[in-house]
Amino acid sequence: MAGKTRLSPAIELDGVVHERVRLAILSALGSHGRLSFNELKALTDTTDGNLSTHCGKLESAGFIRAAKGLFGRRTRTSYEITTAGREALLSYLEQLEKIMGEVRGH
Amino acid sequence: MAGKTRLSPAIELDGVVHERVRLAILSALGSHGRLSFNELKALTDTTDGNLSTHCGKLESAGFIRAAKGLFGRRTRTSYEITTAGREALLSYLEQLEKIMGEVRGH
Repeated sequence: MAGKTRLSPAIELDGVVHERVRLAILSALGSHGRLSFNELKALTDTTDGNLSTHCGKLESAGFIRAAKGLFGRRTRTSYEITTAGREALLSYLEQLEKIMGEVRGH
Repeated sequence: MAGKTRLSPAIELDGVVHERVRLAILSALGSHGRLSFNELKALTDTTDGNLSTHCGKLESAGFIRAAKGLFGRRTRTSYEITTAGREALLSYLEQLEKIMGEVRGH
């Protein structure tokens, strides 16, 4: 019964990372390095507005950073994960492993 | 580059399961069997109203079921996971493993 009354590991998941679009952005940048706005859009299957909002939240948290560059006559925004973002992502994955351990009984 | 343009596994996470309080409820019921409303409240550290809302969503999805019983003069509600709920939880964990594999590169 002691195990039942501890706070669930799910509740301790970082809310900034946990939201699905933000988790998709962070895990993509964490594994692929720098990605353009349009590449992230394809990965997350969302609208420009929604993707911008989530990128903004991740930037505010210091987890990703944007770089704007001129390609011909068009500006292109690309993103990369920061050290703090990578640490947050790895802590999040460790927390997920606790949940898995809870459910699978090890 | 082909790997970059596929939909992120994070986007395909089941939204009913993914929300933190609901994930806490499902994983607790999946590992401990039947739990009372108050036990779930301690595990999720949330208000009665918020917990009720999330339990209601999980019931509507067919993932948990409630049983009310009289204990002395008080009614006590307890919950258990359904077969569909267990399947949804296990599929969710498999999806999490895809995300982990993406980030950790295996």
